[in-house]
Amino acid sequence: MAGNSFGQLFRITTFGESHGGAVGVVVDGCPPGIEITEEEIQVQLDRRKPGQSKITTPRKEPDIVKILSGYFQGKTTGTPILLIAYNEEFESDDYLELKDVYRPSHADFTYEAKYGFRDWRGSGRASARETLARVAAAAIAQKYLSAIGGSASGGKNTGIEFISYVEQVGDIKANVDFNSVTAKDVESNIIRCPDQKVAERMIELVEKVKADGDSIGGIIQGVIKNVPAGLGEPVFDKISADLGKAMLSINAVKGFDIGLGFRSVGMRGSEHNDAFYTDKSGNVRTKTNNAGGTLGGISSGETIHFRVVFKPVSTIKKEQDTVNTKGEATKLEASGRHDPCVLPRAVPIVDAMGALVIMDHYLRNKAQNS
Amino acid sequence: MAGNSFGQLFRITTFGESHGGAVGVVVDGCPPGIEITEEEIQVQLDRRKPGQSKITTPRKEPDIVKILSGYFQGKTTGTPILLIAYNEEFESDDYLELKDVYRPSHADFTYEAKYGFRDWRGSGRASARETLARVAAAAIAQKYLSAIGGSASGGKNTGIEFISYVEQVGDIKANVDFNSVTAKDVESNIIRCPDQKVAERMIELVEKVKADGDSIGGIIQGVIKNVPAGLGEPVFDKISADLGKAMLSINAVKGFDIGLGFRSVGMRGSEHNDAFYTDKSGNVRTKTNNAGGTLGGISSGETIHFRVVFKPVSTIKKEQDTVNTKGEATKLEASGRHDPCVLPRAVPIVDAMGALVIMDHYLRNKAQNS
Amino acid sequence: MAGNSFGQLFRITTFGESHGGAVGVVVDGCPPGIEITEEEIQVQLDRRKPGQSKITTPRKEPDIVKILSGYFQGKTTGTPILLIAYNEEFESDDYLELKDVYRPSHADFTYEAKYGFRDWRGSGRASARETLARVAAAAIAQKYLSAIGGSASGGKNTGIEFISYVEQVGDIKANVDFNSVTAKDVESNIIRCPDQKVAERMIELVEKVKADGDSIGGIIQGVIKNVPAGLGEPVFDKISADLGKAMLSINAVKGFDIGLGFRSVGMRGSEHNDAFYTDKSGNVRTKTNNAGGTLGGISSGETIHFRVVFKPVSTIKKEQDTVNTKGEATKLEASGRHDPCVLPRAVPIVDAMGALVIMDHYLRNKAQNS
Amino acid sequence: MAGNSFGQLFRITTFGESHGGAVGVVVDGCPPGIEITEEEIQVQLDRRKPGQSKITTPRKEPDIVKILSGYFQGKTTGTPILLIAYNEEFESDDYLELKDVYRPSHADFTYEAKYGFRDWRGSGRASARETLARVAAAAIAQKYLSAIGGSASGGKNTGIEFISYVEQVGDIKANVDFNSVTAKDVESNIIRCPDQKVAERMIELVEKVKADGDSIGGIIQGVIKNVPAGLGEPVFDKISADLGKAMLSINAVKGFDIGLGFRSVGMRGSEHNDAFYTDKSGNVRTKTNNAGGTLGGISSGETIHFRVVFKPVSTIKKEQDTVNTKGEATKLEASGRHDPCVLPRAVPIVDAMGALVIMDHYLRNKAQNS
Repeated sequence: MAGNSFGQLFRITTFGESHGGAVGVVVDGCPPGIEITEEEIQVQLDRRKPGQSKITTPRKEPDIVKILSGYFQGKTTGTPILLIAYNEEFESDDYLELKDVYRPSHADFTYEAKYGFRDWRGSGRASARETLARVAAAAIAQKYLSAIGGSASGGKNTGIEFISYVEQVGDIKANVDFNSVTAKDVESNIIRCPDQKVAERMIELVEKVKADGDSIGGIIQGVIKNVPAGLGEPVFDKISADLGKAMLSINAVKGFDIGLGFRSVGMRGSEHNDAFYTDKSGNVRTKTNNAGGTLGGISSGETIHFRVVFKPVSTIKKEQDTVNTKGEATKLEASGRHDPCVLPRAVPIVDAMGALVIMDHYLRNKAQNS
Repeated sequence: MAGNSFGQLFRITTFGESHGGAVGVVVDGCPPGIEITEEEIQVQLDRRKPGQSKITTPRKEPDIVKILSGYFQGKTTGTPILLIAYNEEFESDDYLELKDVYRPSHADFTYEAKYGFRDWRGSGRASARETLARVAAAAIAQKYLSAIGGSASGGKNTGIEFISYVEQVGDIKANVDFNSVTAKDVESNIIRCPDQKVAERMIELVEKVKADGDSIGGIIQGVIKNVPAGLGEPVFDKISADLGKAMLSINAVKGFDIGLGFRSVGMRGSEHNDAFYTDKSGNVRTKTNNAGGTLGGISSGETIHFRVVFKPVSTIKKEQDTVNTKGEATKLEASGRHDPCVLPRAVPIVDAMGALVIMDHYLRNKAQNS
Repeated sequence: MAGNSFGQLFRITTFGESHGGAVGVVVDGCPPGIEITEEEIQVQLDRRKPGQSKITTPRKEPDIVKILSGYFQGKTTGTPILLIAYNEEFESDDYLELKDVYRPSHADFTYEAKYGFRDWRGSGRASARETLARVAAAAIAQKYLSAIGGSASGGKNTGIEFISYVEQVGDIKANVDFNSVTAKDVESNIIRCPDQKVAERMIELVEKVKADGDSIGGIIQGVIKNVPAGLGEPVFDKISADLGKAMLSINAVKGFDIGLGFRSVGMRGSEHNDAFYTDKSGNVRTKTNNAGGTLGGISSGETIHFRVVFKPVSTIKKEQDTVNTKGEATKLEASGRHDPCVLPRAVPIVDAMGALVIMDHYLRNKAQNS
Repeated sequence: MAGNSFGQLFRITTFGESHGGAVGVVVDGCPPGIEITEEEIQVQLDRRKPGQSKITTPRKEPDIVKILSGYFQGKTTGTPILLIAYNEEFESDDYLELKDVYRPSHADFTYEAKYGFRDWRGSGRASARETLARVAAAAIAQKYLSAIGGSASGGKNTGIEFISYVEQVGDIKANVDFNSVTAKDVESNIIRCPDQKVAERMIELVEKVKADGDSIGGIIQGVIKNVPAGLGEPVFDKISADLGKAMLSINAVKGFDIGLGFRSVGMRGSEHNDAFYTDKSGNVRTKTNNAGGTLGGISSGETIHFRVVFKPVSTIKKEQDTVNTKGEATKLEASGRHDPCVLPRAVPIVDAMGALVIMDHYLRNKAQNS
């Protein structure tokens, strides 16, 4: 109830602060018999880790996850899986400057308002380091779902796939067809934008922002392919609502829409509606996919596509007005090494949160309706 | 787990289809001793009910809610509250045309994909009639929260208030300052837009769309005032994430953002960050409120403001291509009486979902942190 | 979280007081397509209803349950099912004597300690009338489970059966073999004890106790047959633990054991252990069933058998010392019409709670492990 | 949902097998600011650890728990607390004999029936080693509750106390007044029975059973003092029901009763009812406490007392009939070092489960009713 768990049947509980002993996750409810290795989990973690390119924070954190339970002879056993990444020793002094001051637009003030005090080392629990636990847990879900094929969404049974990418950084927008994008396209450059030309301009922008000691926001396009029709619960736990919550729970996310979303406002129903037809395989399909892959909150078999908005991150090197913990006016010029733009590292997090939502709804639907 | 409950401590479970016996809700975990009458609940329901103006559906539904349990001598008792609205008799024939056909962009097809068959009378469980249960339950939360004052958010202790309004219909945008808008302003016209001039144009547009047998979308601005700092859980159950889920669970909602949201993408951190200062009362405040009232998912004491996107509703009178339940191509021209634009009736639903989120987090914070 | 819900996937939420509008239940997560009628539900309710024989309370309550949602064309639809029984008008005066006094060993005092006040009409929410909601909801689970066959537990695939009976009233014990008892045996007399001779003595005892204006306790033997091996979760949600909670949540229940339970204390492991063997069908079975059908909290395929202890009910006609709501010493001589012994009416409640536990674990196991 | 979590607001999730990386627990929802050290937690763990006396298993396991998150400057922070105990290296060969055979009355067979295979090293997840995680988590709850005083239960505000003890081993029963027993009394001998003379006889019995290569059961009396009136939820989540579930979730527990429990069966209501009176401090009290400290599932302010039945543990050195994983008949003579009687080591586990139940209900009541 304190909000550190996600999912009902495939349920993860994350723990850990940026500093202190460790960051990790317990995965409960995982089906037994999934064959997976620490190395396969690490592939996803490496997409998220700091220091991976010139446009991310130069911090080097030990994002090495170990499996300490629920695992035997290369397979999940059905019992809770502990995935843990130990924190490295650090110099407390690095963060002493933040001990008594509230960073603007950061969670320092609200944590103190809530709990009475806070672990001020490296943002404590509000650190994005927490998201490595989500990515690690989701890697197991992704492995399981890769063997589940969507019936309606198009011929080849390639399993459920999560292929998010960076669509916009600042005012620079990519032009990508989410229907044809591949995981390989996304990994083809350091900003994870499949539009190569635009990617270069995005990288330039981030480098400029970094040089300015500032930060910049952007949009990630989420794409989930081959989801079978029928997942999602019709009232509160719509796939669209659960994806929205999942994405809005990521640090720095301030907006979410699905299908045409904000772009549907000016349209008439007669324009926006997706007409049904029956394809050659006898599956009911829609000619367009303005809805984004869900109807009434339940997956339709079409590709699920949505957008996730990241604000510019709050920790910047420029001097800012703020107050200290006594309420006195002061100036802050953060010296830490932060990401000028979190989007490239956030792509695997969007994939992970998508996988956690789909995995959970897959099991929920299986329980009630199979 | 089948998604018909919302909230952890102030927990509602809704039930009922558009037709059949009744629609309603069980409210569990409600504090005892709240003085409230059926009439006070009805005030909110009347804002949602069909047939309230020339721009809503002319259907007349009996949105009269009765309290059947958890209530004694004018007060809640702490035990589960049953709120129920009986459905009226109806002519089955009205819906026979929908029995064997999938309405484009409606949930007919996905319900069948999920459950194997569906209650085809009046959209069944996918009917927006379900939302009356939410509005009724939330009226109790709103009563309770009206006695809770936010410490930081400005002077007069008027309790927590929910003042949403219509900001955009199609391409017509209002110009409203959410900081000064009042509940009375919202109710001053039938489209619930406090910008009177723009409201007239919106009404004209909806009438035109109605005459065309079509539908139109829009945006509701959600506003929650006087929320004390410290509510919300820092990781998955952020106030922002839970509001997002709450809004995205409303029928026809396809997008949500908080604070500047989508508008923050092009900004630098140095522009977007809200500088802290200490006000005359000694409260820590922010000079701007780009974040929208939450920092790290926890309320900051500033006004919570967010946007909710409604697509044009799918049921229209224009002829559309679709398939029947046998998968055969057919045409559909719906004859039912539907809203050309759901926004005016959705305003109290946005308020209601906001109240359910804040109420739940208020109790959760009280349990752990008071 | 206020304890009015039971089950995770087949989840019921009950509501209602003894007096006031109604008593009932929302069943969420019910599989679609279960064919059931109101009459089939009524069969179980009639086993629980007051006034059914000379040894139960002579009160006549309208235990007629209506299905108001989640039901279409004779089948469950997968959406929430509302089952409701309206309360009859009553004379408030009947209960005025209890308004200002705490009945010894009743919940009057603790409700006030908890909520600050209480609905004093007919015990309010603490009334055993609440259990009719459980019985109604469980009738649906029982229908579903009657089509599920246990693999190991013996030949004929008759589906999962719930056959509880009265084993002891006061000091009078029956001698029944739970392995061979049938539902028909249980219904063969008004006290629901399959040992006919002992049943007569039990009935005599209850009549004597009734004549004395007193009450008497007893033990119900719970029996669940044909549960497949593999249900139950190994740590906190053991089948044995969940059955224990289920039974201890019934009014007046003060004890529970499974298998030999309290009778195992004096035994050595070498006596108590159930040896495995392989039966003719190739199923792994145990020669004895001292464990009661679960090993490590997971069903073994053997018959689940357990005992449920009911204290003598607290409301009696004899004069008792107590205090009033001002804390002043007073005498109480209850004039209401109460059961001298709740056991005959509690048999279907034990069956119902057993069905809710098994149904929930069946779906949970299906989600993770099928 | 896979049963590895316990509690709603003070929620623990345990993980880990007997062998493999580690055993531990995440505590979510813990109030911030509790001052506690690893040493204080260790005190409880040392009461549970193997090898503590001549009558427990001679195994030496590293029951050293580390706090890796949710903790800063000697206090809980309000974020999830990871408590972890690493497993030592072990000789796989020790357990190879159990790899292909089902121990009678153990969970080997049912785990395989459920998950398809099992981690056969040292009972895997079914190992009682899992309970160290519960004891560690509960130590935090016990610290918090020690500062909470019951209003009605008698004068000195000493905080809520958990003082369980061994009441019976085999047929040997102690004679102890639970009202006056102290924690020190319990620790005064290695079997944790405050009746010194009887304790000696119990120890002799266990030594004899051990010499026989057999095992023996017993009863632990649970005692919780100074619980304020008003905790517990009136329907499913009664204090009595949740305590029952908590205790029945402990390995080898087969029965539970509260107050007079099984001993109430032969009584009349007029004998069993606890008469109310008002004490000198003006608190409503009961002259007797047959109910065991709860009325209608809600704490009354009187001492909560209950009994927990442990069967003789299944792993013994005597030769037993069983089958192997192929279903073939075989003999088993376990060579491992197991407890002949788990009761002395189970006393802190009963205290721990009691603390988890009371802590959770304390927070739940605070949320709704304070």
